[in-house]
Parts: sequence; C-alpha cells; structure tokens
Amino acid sequence: MKFSERVLNMQESPIRKLIPFAEKAKKAGKKVYHLNIGQPDLETPKEFFSTISNLPSKVIAYSHSAGIIELREAFSNYYKKMNIDFDPEDIIITTGGSEAIVFSLAAISDPNDEVIVIEPFYANYKGFAEMLNVKLLPVRAVPENGYAVPPTEEFEKVVTSKTKAIIFSNPSNPTGAVYTREELQRIVDFAKKHDLYIISDEVYKEFTFDGTKHVSIMEFEDKERFIVVDSISKRYSGCGMRIGVFATKNKELYSQVMKFAQSRLCSPVVEQYGTVGILNNISEEYMENVKKEYMKRRDIVYEELSKIEGLSFEKPKGSFYVSVKVPVDNTEEFIKFMLNDFDIDGETVMVAPLNGFYATEGAGLQELRIAYVLEPSKLRRACYILAEGIKAYNNK
Amino acid sequence: MKFSERVLNMQESPIRKLIPFAEKAKKAGKKVYHLNIGQPDLETPKEFFSTISNLPSKVIAYSHSAGIIELREAFSNYYKKMNIDFDPEDIIITTGGSEAIVFSLAAISDPNDEVIVIEPFYANYKGFAEMLNVKLLPVRAVPENGYAVPPTEEFEKVVTSKTKAIIFSNPSNPTGAVYTREELQRIVDFAKKHDLYIISDEVYKEFTFDGTKHVSIMEFEDKERFIVVDSISKRYSGCGMRIGVFATKNKELYSQVMKFAQSRLCSPVVEQYGTVGILNNISEEYMENVKKEYMKRRDIVYEELSKIEGLSFEKPKGSFYVSVKVPVDNTEEFIKFMLNDFDIDGETVMVAPLNGFYATEGAGLQELRIAYVLEPSKLRRACYILAEGIKAYNNK
Repeated sequence: MKFSERVLNMQESPIRKLIPFAEKAKKAGKKVYHLNIGQPDLETPKEFFSTISNLPSKVIAYSHSAGIIELREAFSNYYKKMNIDFDPEDIIITTGGSEAIVFSLAAISDPNDEVIVIEPFYANYKGFAEMLNVKLLPVRAVPENGYAVPPTEEFEKVVTSKTKAIIFSNPSNPTGAVYTREELQRIVDFAKKHDLYIISDEVYKEFTFDGTKHVSIMEFEDKERFIVVDSISKRYSGCGMRIGVFATKNKELYSQVMKFAQSRLCSPVVEQYGTVGILNNISEEYMENVKKEYMKRRDIVYEELSKIEGLSFEKPKGSFYVSVKVPVDNTEEFIKFMLNDFDIDGETVMVAPLNGFYATEGAGLQELRIAYVLEPSKLRRACYILAEGIKAYNNK
Repeated sequence: MKFSERVLNMQESPIRKLIPFAEKAKKAGKKVYHLNIGQPDLETPKEFFSTISNLPSKVIAYSHSAGIIELREAFSNYYKKMNIDFDPEDIIITTGGSEAIVFSLAAISDPNDEVIVIEPFYANYKGFAEMLNVKLLPVRAVPENGYAVPPTEEFEKVVTSKTKAIIFSNPSNPTGAVYTREELQRIVDFAKKHDLYIISDEVYKEFTFDGTKHVSIMEFEDKERFIVVDSISKRYSGCGMRIGVFATKNKELYSQVMKFAQSRLCSPVVEQYGTVGILNNISEEYMENVKKEYMKRRDIVYEELSKIEGLSFEKPKGSFYVSVKVPVDNTEEFIKFMLNDFDIDGETVMVAPLNGFYATEGAGLQELRIAYVLEPSKLRRACYILAEGIKAYNNK
C-alpha cells in the first residue's frame, strides 16, 4: 500500500521524535529532566476544575462552530483590556493554536503557494504546511543578535508572485526573541508592499521579561491583512485543553474560515466552559506570578548556561525557551547520546534539536532548544548535567 | 485580499448553513424543532461527569499524541468484545471522527488524487476533501432500494489510476442504510482489484434496528487496506467532547498518520479521561436502552412519514437518520420557507437539504434528511408540521 507524498515528506516532530529514546532511558532506570517540550509544571488554575465540575448542561452537545458565545465574549474582554480590539464575532475558538494555523494557511494558500517564515520557527508550522502542500520560504534569524527580525532585503530575496503570507511567533518559540515595534513595522510595510497576509502567533504574548512589552500585530494599521493565533495552553498551564483562537478583523476572511470550522463541527466543549471559568474569574496576580516564576527560571538557565564554555546565545526576552548554539557536531546525535549513554548519578536531560525548527536543509545542526519549564532546583541540576554531557560527548 | 481556491470551492455545511434562518425564526418568536443536525437529546452518561470532576492530575498537560494509554486500552477492550481485533497500538485518539477522516485522506492522497465515495454521504467528507485538494468520485445509491451499495459496475466506471481509496459510512449518515456482508464483500473485492484503501466510518455501528447486525470492515480479509473511523459523539450523546478514533492494523500507515497526530500535539485531555470513565464503567443496558429509544423514534418517524403523500423512502435499518425524497422542487428553498414563512401555532421544523450530501452537481434537490433525535411526542408533532408545510409550500 502506498502513502501520499505529503505525509512521506513530513518530518517527525523534533520535539517528540526522540521520546522513544527517553522512554528507553527511563526503562533502564534513569531519571530524565524534560526540557524538550513546552509543558509547564505549574498547576492549572482551580477555576478550571471548579467550572468543569459544574457544567450547565447534562448533554455535552455540539457548540456553535465558532465556539460558545460566553467564551468568545470572555476572550474579547481579555483582548480589550490589552487594547486589542477583537469583538466576539472576530473570534473563532479552535482546537489549540494548531488548528488556527491550519485554518489560516488553508484559507489563504493553495498547493504550491508560498508562505514566508522567520526561521528557526515553531517546528509544527512545517508539518501543517506539508499537510496542505504549502511551501515555506525561510528567512533566517541568527543567534548572534538574539534572533531578531532579519533585514527586509532578506525578505525581498525570497518573495515571489506565489507568496501569500508571512508567519512568525512573537514572542518567539523557539528563540525567546520578542520583536520590537520597529521590527514589526518593517514586516507590516513589507506585507503591504507585496499584498501579503500576516499570521501573528501570539501564544506567548504574556511571557515577556525585564520590562519588555509585547507588541501585538493588532497595534498596526492595515488590519485586514492580520490574523492573530492565540492559545491558553501555556498561559494557564492547560496544554491538554486544546483551546486556541483564530482572530481577524477581516470579515470576509472570517466567513471563509468558518467553512472549515463548520466542517469539523466544534472545539471541545468541556474545555471551552473551563476556559470561560478561568478568563472570567482569574485574579490579575495569577499571570504576574507566572511571569515572575518564568523570569526566575530564565535567569537561572541564563546563569547556568553562561558557565558553559563555547555556547552562543543571548538572554531571551520572552516565551519560555532559549535557543543555544553548542559545541557539538550534531545536536540530535548529542541528545541520543545523553539519553542512551550518559547520566550523572542515574540522571540525564532531554532537550530538542533545533534542526527540525528550520526549513533550510542542514541548518541548526549545532543548535538546541531548552524549555525552562521545571522548578529552579531541577533546572540548575539539568543545566549542570547538560554541561557535563557536552564534555563527555566530545571526549567519546 | 485574496482567498485560496480550496476555501472558495468549499460549500457551507448543509447541516449548519441554514441556521441563520432558524435563528431569525426564533427571534420572531417561533419554536423550531431541530431535525437538521444529529445532536441527540439524551443525557451524557453520568460516568463522564463523575470522572471529569476527579481528574488524576492538577495540570492539564499534553497527552501522548496517540491519546492516553488508558483510553486506547479501553477502546481496544470495547472493540474486542465485538470481535474487532484492535490493540491499543492500532488506535490513535482523534479530535472527533472528523480529524480521523482528515488524517486518513491526507496520509493516502495528494492533491488531484481521487477517493470514491458512495453518495449521498456525510456532507463534511466534501469539506475535508476540498481542504486537502482531494477529488471525490461519487457512486450513486438510490432511495428506491434503500440506498444500498451500488452495483460494482458503477464503481468500475469511475475508478482511475489516481484513485486511492473508497470512503463510506456504515450504518449510513444520511440514509440510514446498513450494508450487508455481501455488499461489503463486493467493496473489499473491488478495493483489492484496484489496490485501494477502504475508509470505513463506523460511527453509528451500535445504531442498528430490527435485529440487523452491523458488519465491520474488520470482519474481512486484507486488513492492511482498512481504516476504521469511530467516534463516541452519538453513542454516548457526547458530540461536544470531540473524541474520535483512527484505527488500522497497517503498522506503516499508523506510523505515517502519527506524524499528523504529533504535529497537532494531542486530543482534548479532559474528554479523553471522561471517555475512559464511560467505556470502563458503563452498563451493558445503557446502549440497549439507547438503541430501543432510537428504534421507537425511527418507528414513529416511519409511521408519520408514511401518512404523507408523494414521499419516496424506505424504513431505515440503522444510524438515526432517514433520507426522503419529497414532492417539492428544491428542498433548500423549502426549508427556508418553513423557517421564514410557515408555522403551525408558532411552531416549525428544520431539516437538512440533501443536495449538500452529494458530490454530483444538482443531485438530491428533492431529497432531505431527518435526524430523529427528539423525543417521541416532539417527533410526531414535527412530522405533522412537515407534512402541512409541504402542502403549503406547493400551494404558495
């Protein structure tokens, strides 16, 4: 039996494909510190649990395909508090940010059309593009300047008549970069010049440090070309809820995307209600505390990584990742080594190889991504194990 | 700003696109009996609610991309009780049956490839195919013989070298047909001859009446070409849970589809646990009672429709739909009339126009689908209003 080209061309998730090695390590009795996946260890807000224990109906029925109105209103209020002008009828509740990206790509591009992406990028963009036969045109950001938005000339080099959009995450997964107003203005100007959509993945917008303020794409003019992708996964430690947002002021685009939304009926209803419970009841301190916690962790990782010789990276300003160039020949092989052949007192570390976050063949082979989603003492220990692992890998 | 051809080509859901007319009717003070959508009115099992009120973790974290092992085990046990041999590692938990169909189509077909479909079919197959640029080749089933599987010659007429699979639902949404072992054997033989996959949507497999036994595709030889799509939406009145199943004994296909599953991370976790609660604890009588209830409803609808002159239909053997040819020129216009311009004592009925369930242009214009998902007295009343509506529409 044959398979489609699109699935054969698809890479395995760089975040998840080495999990069998981790499972083997655990079976062998090792403890593995998971810094490979952005799965926070913080507790999901209690408002979620209390809401889903008291659902308003005895039938878990389909919801409106755009999501229950209570949730769209709650998100609208949330955005308006941040001066982002989304009304409930600008919002479609999606099954995770993932589905919002799939819907966006499918609504604006046909097979063989192109979408510009700032690389390294959230690895699954590549998977979604493969599934839809959309070609990603990478424009490279580099560790040396903290993975800032590349010069406009680099965008001009790749754009063609088949290019439909630019996609990026800001704050950035995997780099931790937070784009400035000036950087974003350059992207907006470029998009306008070439009549492109901008898909702004703002999932990490509340995760900014050192007084850095996240600038939403919605703060710029020319709103009909903007799509905002959002998710509560990281913000409220609810990755398993699969509650995301597709939002746009472009009414016609909204109607088109609703056709996709209707075809899959609705997003999970229990979690929709639970998210209403969170958004309408959570204290303002909650997110402040979460931010403080991640900033503390960021500082620890930065401090510990700074002790390791030969790394290239900048102090990340946002999200909860840092991408690092390390002195090994191939980070995927290095990670396998860490899981198969290395431990300190029975403990080892799993990180994500950055190669899979690039569309350019062979790029990022010496880079890796660390998700600082563990508590401080564990993070320190994990960084120490990582440093010793690099030495051992290069001495083997 | 432009949109993709694929979204422009996509029809709106025939089940949902007339909802604005229903909303308008309700605003005008009318009561609307909804027979348009397969949303059961039965209560979701209490085991679901008790399970989600006592989740095992304080963090709603990502699950395994194939679904939590407890749920895959529970489904495996469920299938094995029915002599369907699926192990936990043959199963991927999907976000509704919808996602299982998208994954199936994407893994076996590229843009411009073809999939044969028995029409009329579950309308959203068309939407998923449009999103993925897969062409549906319809083979027509007809109301005169209860929408049975068409003769093999009809399949031979449409198959080409670009055809990759056959998809159908059995029991059938929208027709209520349940395919016999002989009919299925013909499909299997045809698929073998042309080396096609078979995507068997068995969502309604527990809804069979009058002693009719559902025959799963898994009862046939040549299992490497079979994909089973399943969902708990209808079975446990949990449409909003979005818990579906992709299952296959084809290990290589399973690995390929896992790439799609990993890219979207996981299915909703609260509902995964809730479904474990149902599958592991529900009594055997539950489904018996559900079946009895729907058979009673089927009988009422059959009895009431038999009173109306000029209809063409057969007593459905399964699912909870019946497709009917009615003496009106255009059922979509008729439904709009029912919502806009007709009522009896302030009450009217909404059904689904069958045209949208066909891939053949202009087919099914005189047919409609009734979902018998309301309690008996409401069903009788709705059928009466429908009968009077047909008269009034033709007299206007």
